Amino acid sequence: MNEYIKNDPWRIIEERFLPERVRAAESLFSIGNGAMGQRGNFEETYTGETLQGSYIGGVYYPDKTRVGWWKNGYPEYFAKVLNSAFWIGIRVRVNGVEIDLAKLKVKDYYHELDMKQGTLSRSFTVEVPQAGDVRIESTRFVSMKRTELGAIRYSITALDSDTQAEICPYIDADVRNEDANYNEKFWEFVSNTPLSVTMKTLKTGFGVCWAMENVLDGATFDNRTEGELVMQCTTVPLKKGEACTLYKYVGICSSLNHAQDRLAEAAADVAREARGAGFDTLLAEQVQAWAEKWAGCDIVIEGDDQAQQGIRYCIFMLLQTYTGKDSRLNIGPKGFTGEKYGGSTYWDTEAYCIPFYLATQGEEVARQLLIYRYNQLDKAIENAAKLGFRDGAALYPMVTMNGEECHNEWEITFEEIHRNGSIAFAIYNYIRYTGEQKYLADYGLEVLIGIARFWAQRANFSPEKNKYVILGVTGPNEYENNVNNNWFTNYIARWCMEYALEAAWWVRENSPADWERIKAKRFFNLETEGRQWAAIIENIHLPEDKQAGIFLQQDGYMDKEQILVEDLDPAERPLNQKWSWDRILRSCFIKQADVLQGIYYFQNRFSPEQIERNFRFYEARTVHESSLSPCVHSILAAKIGDMDKAYELYLRAARLDLDDYNRENEEGCHITSMAGSWLSVVEGFGGMRADGGHLSFTTSLPPNWKAFAYKIIYRGRIVNVRVSTSGTEVTLDSGEPLEITVNGEPRLIK
Amino acid sequence: MNEYIKNDPWRIIEERFLPERVRAAESLFSIGNGAMGQRGNFEETYTGETLQGSYIGGVYYPDKTRVGWWKNGYPEYFAKVLNSAFWIGIRVRVNGVEIDLAKLKVKDYYHELDMKQGTLSRSFTVEVPQAGDVRIESTRFVSMKRTELGAIRYSITALDSDTQAEICPYIDADVRNEDANYNEKFWEFVSNTPLSVTMKTLKTGFGVCWAMENVLDGATFDNRTEGELVMQCTTVPLKKGEACTLYKYVGICSSLNHAQDRLAEAAADVAREARGAGFDTLLAEQVQAWAEKWAGCDIVIEGDDQAQQGIRYCIFMLLQTYTGKDSRLNIGPKGFTGEKYGGSTYWDTEAYCIPFYLATQGEEVARQLLIYRYNQLDKAIENAAKLGFRDGAALYPMVTMNGEECHNEWEITFEEIHRNGSIAFAIYNYIRYTGEQKYLADYGLEVLIGIARFWAQRANFSPEKNKYVILGVTGPNEYENNVNNNWFTNYIARWCMEYALEAAWWVRENSPADWERIKAKRFFNLETEGRQWAAIIENIHLPEDKQAGIFLQQDGYMDKEQILVEDLDPAERPLNQKWSWDRILRSCFIKQADVLQGIYYFQNRFSPEQIERNFRFYEARTVHESSLSPCVHSILAAKIGDMDKAYELYLRAARLDLDDYNRENEEGCHITSMAGSWLSVVEGFGGMRADGGHLSFTTSLPPNWKAFAYKIIYRGRIVNVRVSTSGTEVTLDSGEPLEITVNGEPRLIK
Repeated sequence: MNEYIKNDPWRIIEERFLPERVRAAESLFSIGNGAMGQRGNFEETYTGETLQGSYIGGVYYPDKTRVGWWKNGYPEYFAKVLNSAFWIGIRVRVNGVEIDLAKLKVKDYYHELDMKQGTLSRSFTVEVPQAGDVRIESTRFVSMKRTELGAIRYSITALDSDTQAEICPYIDADVRNEDANYNEKFWEFVSNTPLSVTMKTLKTGFGVCWAMENVLDGATFDNRTEGELVMQCTTVPLKKGEACTLYKYVGICSSLNHAQDRLAEAAADVAREARGAGFDTLLAEQVQAWAEKWAGCDIVIEGDDQAQQGIRYCIFMLLQTYTGKDSRLNIGPKGFTGEKYGGSTYWDTEAYCIPFYLATQGEEVARQLLIYRYNQLDKAIENAAKLGFRDGAALYPMVTMNGEECHNEWEITFEEIHRNGSIAFAIYNYIRYTGEQKYLADYGLEVLIGIARFWAQRANFSPEKNKYVILGVTGPNEYENNVNNNWFTNYIARWCMEYALEAAWWVRENSPADWERIKAKRFFNLETEGRQWAAIIENIHLPEDKQAGIFLQQDGYMDKEQILVEDLDPAERPLNQKWSWDRILRSCFIKQADVLQGIYYFQNRFSPEQIERNFRFYEARTVHESSLSPCVHSILAAKIGDMDKAYELYLRAARLDLDDYNRENEEGCHITSMAGSWLSVVEGFGGMRADGGHLSFTTSLPPNWKAFAYKIIYRGRIVNVRVSTSGTEVTLDSGEPLEITVNGEPRLIK
Repeated sequence: MNEYIKNDPWRIIEERFLPERVRAAESLFSIGNGAMGQRGNFEETYTGETLQGSYIGGVYYPDKTRVGWWKNGYPEYFAKVLNSAFWIGIRVRVNGVEIDLAKLKVKDYYHELDMKQGTLSRSFTVEVPQAGDVRIESTRFVSMKRTELGAIRYSITALDSDTQAEICPYIDADVRNEDANYNEKFWEFVSNTPLSVTMKTLKTGFGVCWAMENVLDGATFDNRTEGELVMQCTTVPLKKGEACTLYKYVGICSSLNHAQDRLAEAAADVAREARGAGFDTLLAEQVQAWAEKWAGCDIVIEGDDQAQQGIRYCIFMLLQTYTGKDSRLNIGPKGFTGEKYGGSTYWDTEAYCIPFYLATQGEEVARQLLIYRYNQLDKAIENAAKLGFRDGAALYPMVTMNGEECHNEWEITFEEIHRNGSIAFAIYNYIRYTGEQKYLADYGLEVLIGIARFWAQRANFSPEKNKYVILGVTGPNEYENNVNNNWFTNYIARWCMEYALEAAWWVRENSPADWERIKAKRFFNLETEGRQWAAIIENIHLPEDKQAGIFLQQDGYMDKEQILVEDLDPAERPLNQKWSWDRILRSCFIKQADVLQGIYYFQNRFSPEQIERNFRFYEARTVHESSLSPCVHSILAAKIGDMDKAYELYLRAARLDLDDYNRENEEGCHITSMAGSWLSVVEGFGGMRADGGHLSFTTSLPPNWKAFAYKIIYRGRIVNVRVSTSGTEVTLDSGEPLEITVNGEPRLIK
């Protein structure tokens, strides 16, 4: 374990300046407000290794696909989130020497992300030639309340002598994506003023304006305006021991929310209003907004400080990545912490993130994520049509920004189709938790019909097996490609058709007007299509190994050499770095939960013995070389009472980024898998289930924890669960009384 | 059918100048001499759409791999043949107007490739403003005798008036590959003289010098030497009706055959000697050399002019692509006609080309192709080691120049491992035809051991099946990826181990010194390794469908929807342009012979009924979307007596390029599949077999042919086979008497 980050329940603290850690720390210390985000870059000049990263949700660019060998059906573009203007910049020269941590000696470095209030602070002393020690302290945040605002307080103190400082806050919009496929720039210059710069994305034409207001007591600024760079400079005396403080307020407005020709005005307004309110007021708003966020979702762990810090970090990062205010946005695997994976939407959202937001931020927030997919249904139908499907069959993309497929590996893009199942499952999961059946009539059924149609066309009848089969797929375990009859895929395909039928009947019975509208809009014929679906539901091939009493990951899995993970030479791990791809593919080793993902989704349908047998079989073969893997295994381990295993798997997930297990923090944090860590606590140890409109808890305490407590929002209530060695208490923080079950016993909480 | 090319038994003739056909015609009119080749580009300036292409066998560049998503094990580079200096260039200005067919009106255009003598000629008249009609005639060849020489005769005649011409022969070495992955230039300038330029390839450091000698009666040249461009200019009077003729002799010498510091001298020598000999002498040498080439290999078809022209074109192109003089060279899929596929070696060589060269150019030529692989054995062992194989197991690359793998699609690179089988089969095939068992002791056994070791490690035992299985492969039918137990792969894997054992015993018995040497060099233990191989040989899984009486392409093939090619909507063809890749993969449609490739290789092991059942089943599902596909099917169709099918499939192959079926001639011709066309005639209709050291012919005549005749070289003899409606005659052109079988009856030919 890497103990670089200091332990603290509410703060992420870095106490040393290590140049080789700067890029990784920039990822960890990212801040965001759902609408935009900023990596933990330094305000002042830094000429060392860095990834300057500033991202605006929903502002993307379709980068031309790069492949080795083109396959028919590949998308032309990968829509990726854009690295955008560096708005935090403050150039500082003391006695003519530029402050640059890569070049000066640094002392007393302290870097803190305060998760309780959503602020990032940094302080350090640098030795400036001919000026002596200079102390710098900064605090910044992107406002949760004013979602188009970033604010910075930046203080400079000369500790050893009177001297002079030139201070130049600036916005630099000459920015490129590090992951551009062809090294192209994605932005073009539109216009500037002394205090703002407006840019436009190529191809997509998103306009964004960054406007600043700078305040430094008693100082006046000279404007230096050079195209994409706008800067204001002032030279101020630094009296020994007296702090000189700059306040920088930046309004960031995009054409997602404003007319193109009003962007500069809108951004200037945001900055001016912030200046009017003042930093302290804005900070107070921020503290308040974050207190409200935490109210329904904190997790307290007693007796394990590292676990405490880890889980709060996960929750914090998720809360600042997505707020559910805009159904055009979603959650990229790296959130606002880096460029990798293009900032696009994956099935991570449905499988991991929706349960988190549903239980911590409420129905409305999670619902926006469902609406996001609803709004992209027609694109999913187009996507399926490109692959030869007809009549309104929908295949949601593997990776997307605007509903169009972006990914370009045939084994993933075309074949990892189980994602369609998770998108349907999220609808079911939402309704199960909220009780809002009407969602089916409003939005859900249309999506379910599209998905069920896809499965009905994608399955074919095998006379050989006298069964319906689904050939040529990649399951969640991406260490298999192009397999036949992946159990999880076939199982969820069947379930999708069942649920679509059930939903259709419900809407027909309960919402006749919607039923007529949907039937007409989607050319849906319940009789003929339903009959076809029913035939497949009744007779789909679900591979099993009866002797081992397990579901079989896919046809032919037992032909593989059956070696266990514990037999692997540690020098050969991780397999994806040590083995060639074909060797991984033909081995029995599993990247992430596959059969077990299905068992997790549909726990009630399997006996405890079935769950245990499958868990033992597959866990022994799973290498967890995906950040999304350990959480599902941890939940199932807790369910079968293997607390050591559950805890071991939980720990791998919860501090993955804080401890930089995989040495890849430089690229950003694993945002979506953080939701999996939360699930491990709440559904794993906390045993929370919401089946059949009834909340229940089957709890267990990891051996080294004294107690843990979590809060969830459930149908208008805040429910507080505390598990300790002396038992499980469930209380209501707010809301109407509720009948629940705790460890098998009914209770009424008030 | 596209009847653009005029029919002629010995010539390829183009009688129109069509700008949109220029690039395609450049491919068709390529010339070569085994050591180098030149596309049919125009000597004079051409500003229209063109691919200037000049290639030198063995001079390659490792271009950095380009992929979308990196997989562990991919090679860093794709070694590709280099487009090199444009040595044919002659800039012509008449009355100051540059001759450029893209800009002037062209009349009486005539383009001819004479296949009998290996020359390319072109004549045309252009209307030159203020000068009237100007007639140009050119003839060029790359010398078969002097393999470092190219020669051009270029005449200009002013038809309408006296005028002046500026004539500037040049060499331009500022050349790039159109298929460069990152648009980089692969050459650097070394030095020049007024008559030569020397270049060096980056990374690989191959040096090449091009040196010219220009002769134009009575003219003196001014030298214009500008780095990579060397040019000589002269201005001559053009008297109305009198031809002015330039002779250009170019020596092309590379560091493959000369010391780097002697390249300029060597190339100048070649050019000077050619100038000394004179064009007519060189041409006479060329005619003589080609007569010798054709002596043992012509095919005459009576009653089908198109088929006649088609098959001669195939033979001609193969003869000018590879001559067997240098074991460092091989046959790229496009030969010297284009850049596609990098000019690298594929299993095409073993499966198609070796039988052709063996029977038409003799043992020594074919043997060089075997030695090529022998010389790369250690690289094949390294290649296997990269994929996790040990102890001298060899996996030959899918695509290579120098023995290192170049290809970068995991499903091909890592999984299309049947290629290893064809490389072993070529050794068997060579010995079967030549009787030279000693090849095993000299070279063959070492290769066979490496290959057998690979298969023994690649198979694993499935307790489920109680059989050895080979998982995760791509068969010859590349419309399936990552399948289990591809019948062809398993069958040839078994055969490789059998043959390696047989070869080992033979060498042990017959060549004890070689046996000891090989055992020591390859750490080979016949007892232990042989026992392991024998276990797999005895018990390998070979999937069958007993009900249908066929071998099964792979496990699970019968789960696919069984549609036939005849049921496909023609609008959906070719599938590889109309269907997404996943749809192709899960369909039953077959790109090229797979099970049938195995049946073709091992015909004697199957009953006529087995061959017919498998042929009927698989032919009905084969879309032949590879140029390598129809020939094997044609041979088997002839074998089972379905002459209509055999002829239909033959025609698809034999005029593929001449008629530009696939509209892809621009990229070059399908050189390796031309060997397949030859096989269709000689092994298909001609029914030639050489099993068990005995030559036999089982002949059949396509319905619309009056007769056909072919020659083969067999163990020092030239054998002449003529099949007509009145029967089959087999005679000897030269060599010792031979007992053969003709249509089941023994004969002695003298």
